Amino acid sequence: MRITVVQFNPLIGHVEANARRIIDQSIACRDRGIDLVVFPELALCGYPPLDLLESEHLVELCRLWASNIAQQTNGIAVIFGLPLKNPLSFGKSLLNGACRTGDGQVQQLWAKSLLPDYDVFDEGRYFAPAPPHYNQLWTHAGVRIAVSICEDLWHHSLSNLYERDPLDDVLYTQADWILNISASPYHMGKEALRHSVLSEVSARLRKPLLYVNTCGAQAELIFDGGSGCYDANGLKAASLPCFESMHADVDWSLGAWSPGKDWKIHDQADSDSEHELNLLRSALVLGIRDFFSKQNLNKAVIGLSGGIDSALVTLLAAEALGSDRVTAILLPSPYSSAHSVDDSLALADRLGIQCIRIPIHSAFFAHMESLEQAFGRPLQDLTEQNLQSRIRCALLMAAANEWGAVLLNTTNKSEMSVGYGTLYGDTSGALSVLGDLLKTRVYRLARHINKSGPLIPEHIIEKAPSAELKPGQADSDDLPPYDVLDAILELYVEKGLAQDRLMNLGFDEHLIQKVIRMVDACEFKRFQSPPVLRVTAKAFGRGRVMPLVGKLVY
Amino acid sequence: MRITVVQFNPLIGHVEANARRIIDQSIACRDRGIDLVVFPELALCGYPPLDLLESEHLVELCRLWASNIAQQTNGIAVIFGLPLKNPLSFGKSLLNGACRTGDGQVQQLWAKSLLPDYDVFDEGRYFAPAPPHYNQLWTHAGVRIAVSICEDLWHHSLSNLYERDPLDDVLYTQADWILNISASPYHMGKEALRHSVLSEVSARLRKPLLYVNTCGAQAELIFDGGSGCYDANGLKAASLPCFESMHADVDWSLGAWSPGKDWKIHDQADSDSEHELNLLRSALVLGIRDFFSKQNLNKAVIGLSGGIDSALVTLLAAEALGSDRVTAILLPSPYSSAHSVDDSLALADRLGIQCIRIPIHSAFFAHMESLEQAFGRPLQDLTEQNLQSRIRCALLMAAANEWGAVLLNTTNKSEMSVGYGTLYGDTSGALSVLGDLLKTRVYRLARHINKSGPLIPEHIIEKAPSAELKPGQADSDDLPPYDVLDAILELYVEKGLAQDRLMNLGFDEHLIQKVIRMVDACEFKRFQSPPVLRVTAKAFGRGRVMPLVGKLVY
Repeated sequence: MRITVVQFNPLIGHVEANARRIIDQSIACRDRGIDLVVFPELALCGYPPLDLLESEHLVELCRLWASNIAQQTNGIAVIFGLPLKNPLSFGKSLLNGACRTGDGQVQQLWAKSLLPDYDVFDEGRYFAPAPPHYNQLWTHAGVRIAVSICEDLWHHSLSNLYERDPLDDVLYTQADWILNISASPYHMGKEALRHSVLSEVSARLRKPLLYVNTCGAQAELIFDGGSGCYDANGLKAASLPCFESMHADVDWSLGAWSPGKDWKIHDQADSDSEHELNLLRSALVLGIRDFFSKQNLNKAVIGLSGGIDSALVTLLAAEALGSDRVTAILLPSPYSSAHSVDDSLALADRLGIQCIRIPIHSAFFAHMESLEQAFGRPLQDLTEQNLQSRIRCALLMAAANEWGAVLLNTTNKSEMSVGYGTLYGDTSGALSVLGDLLKTRVYRLARHINKSGPLIPEHIIEKAPSAELKPGQADSDDLPPYDVLDAILELYVEKGLAQDRLMNLGFDEHLIQKVIRMVDACEFKRFQSPPVLRVTAKAFGRGRVMPLVGKLVY
Repeated sequence: MRITVVQFNPLIGHVEANARRIIDQSIACRDRGIDLVVFPELALCGYPPLDLLESEHLVELCRLWASNIAQQTNGIAVIFGLPLKNPLSFGKSLLNGACRTGDGQVQQLWAKSLLPDYDVFDEGRYFAPAPPHYNQLWTHAGVRIAVSICEDLWHHSLSNLYERDPLDDVLYTQADWILNISASPYHMGKEALRHSVLSEVSARLRKPLLYVNTCGAQAELIFDGGSGCYDANGLKAASLPCFESMHADVDWSLGAWSPGKDWKIHDQADSDSEHELNLLRSALVLGIRDFFSKQNLNKAVIGLSGGIDSALVTLLAAEALGSDRVTAILLPSPYSSAHSVDDSLALADRLGIQCIRIPIHSAFFAHMESLEQAFGRPLQDLTEQNLQSRIRCALLMAAANEWGAVLLNTTNKSEMSVGYGTLYGDTSGALSVLGDLLKTRVYRLARHINKSGPLIPEHIIEKAPSAELKPGQADSDDLPPYDVLDAILELYVEKGLAQDRLMNLGFDEHLIQKVIRMVDACEFKRFQSPPVLRVTAKAFGRGRVMPLVGKLVY
């Protein structure tokens, strides 16, 4: 049985475009003598469709296009994910489904049993679980295949989050192999986690497994592909590259997988830190690229401060979009150091991007004068600092307006955590590239990238971080050293540890209280922040929903 | 049996503060000879606690304080909502629970069966439904009481959203009366809807019903109270006022309710439009007031443009906070009309609020000059308009910084729907007061308020709306007339009708396409918008979660 796996990159809501690509790819496969082509979870409408699922029109479009795909791909079996109507008279009206076409018709339906409802996932909002006995084996030329969807394989790894394991169904004991179609997003460490889960499942059930994952970014969520095939001992026969929207063939014959040339043969995920940093870089680049391509955005604008964050964002944007689609803007103030300008120019030069300079002096003085006249006294220090940041935002957005470009945000996760940034100032932008990278990780990634060629001037990496909003300012005036701060933030924000547990870990009590107070106090800033490319298991955004008014009081 | 109903207004996450108020109120009731005092759903931690529920510390605090409440209120029965641990070994780890204390101990637990997971509700993210046989009758002095939580009464009205109706449980046939504790938020029309649901339930089960609802605002969500008691025929014996955090006594004797003096006796909800507008005004005032009081915010700053939206926000803020805590700022530009300034001054005078003027001319010219120098050419029209809006934002935020005040946003729902506003400009602010009121409703509310005294100068209500960002500009240059626009927005945004259904309703095809395109194209602006006070059944914010990249293509 010859199978093609497609690491599909759908457009959310654009059913026709997704369907036409499914048709084209399936016809090409049929012409090459392939028996089955597999697309991922909800490939037809894109994942996550969110409240578009509340539109009956979307569901009807999916039904019509599924028929259309069946008709146009007559002669090859095609499996893809789509929302289905729930046949039961109660519960949510939809199923997170999959269908198989062939011989001109939709011939079989499946649905997901376990609906994740945590972190960035809210499938319980839209879907009912697969009704009893809804999922059946598919027997093709004597081979019995059990089809499952994403989370359905994850019960054992989620400490009884769900009432029952759908893999206990007799379906899975009768199958020759198991197919899983997924839309499972990347975070650091996910490759190894996924490998251990899939490996455990195939070993426990003693069934070979073929795993097909989405690849592409949808605003915050970056789907990494990394499809794989496992033998009945849970050993990974082979996997497809991460972050490449591609298709590849694999044969099922004599009870074993024979992967084609695009598959990488290995038996364990590569997990050293250089490998993780490579994946992180690819994730961010794909995140930027798809954000632009899927919205037909053309150019990116970045305010280049001379610091590490904006330097890294500029580099990643140039890598994602090409140097000709990125413009850096220098916005020096009376407090900017000479090295900030020089370092920025050096970076722009190395990246081959356009760089323009718009000094903020005169706008800053005009604001100050109007305000001091209105108030009859000099402004406070903090007001002056915020003003500079907001003027830069206005100038950057003006440049974006002029060029039909989009501003990229350069805030890192440490700053976002403690609110070290000005709302409507440096917190602005269409997409936050580094909002899920703590400052120490920003440095690690910058150093990693520089190993393969010194793209970022060393001085940018080495100098002490400063917002340069007043003379001689340094981040360390207001914040704990980043290595200490990030260690606390990782435990409090990413791992969700409470104050008392942090104290038991040996951190200074007052420091912990200060950091927690800072994090909790700036929920209002994060509420209005741009979408953040998610690269950890707990990013700011829809995966961390905190009350705006009210916080945990110890 | 003497009962006190408390329309409690909790602080989310501040378990100790909520517990102390529960204790104080319960002791006061005991001293008055009350038998039972009832607080609403999740009163102990506040509703909605959102991801604070993921903190084991919160749940443990609730457990400890429930015991503490029991000890300190020995001698009176107290019922209140709190998160409980799920005793089952699978599923979400918490229950949306309630407990009864008395004789110094927690004596009985209940849990919610139906967990809403739509619109602004995401209880499936945190809670498992009540385990089988978890909920039992409470028999007090021979009276059998069935305790239920919020949604558990709503199965019949939600067209089989849930698998089974918890009211089918034998518990409810055996009870003498049913208690329901809720945290059910306001929207226009909710009072009548709630009345019809509760009335239907008590009539169907032929059981009297006592309904206790939360009262108070939590950022976007405004809980309106309006607790009520119904007889076994579904007739409403009486109800408590909406939008008043208060307590009131009701006696259960001889199988009937005897409400005390604070209850309003009537048998149907008042539903004329003046009544609805009164409720709307109260909701917005409470929304502003609690936003400030619960965060210990002091003053509000509002940019007063001379238009209806900022005038209404200023009036509502003055009503919520007092005139002395509201400052209006006039930010005239070269394009501002004389009447904008005069009308604004007249309004500030009538409201008795401070009003200062900060012209934006010099900041505007300084920006323009720096930009034109950088670009080597004059700026485009749109860039100039956005610049003015962003300069106003920077100046308003500077004033807020200087005074330790908070900027209120003045965007209405029509503008928010079609993106008629500048990101980091007039879309800014800590709270959007009118973001759930279409422009025509803004006018209706303003006229309604003026009936009881001409607080808003007539000219503000009568003149044609204009952003005044270029000479002679009017909203009607860019947008359809508001009555037409709002009619489409109500159907598309609030009712979720698809394009084809709108066409069948007789609207012009091109107009519908244009409006839908505008709404869908500005998801990125709404993503970064302030929290919006929710007053309709479909507000922007967490209740309407649309993909940022990707939209429904017809």
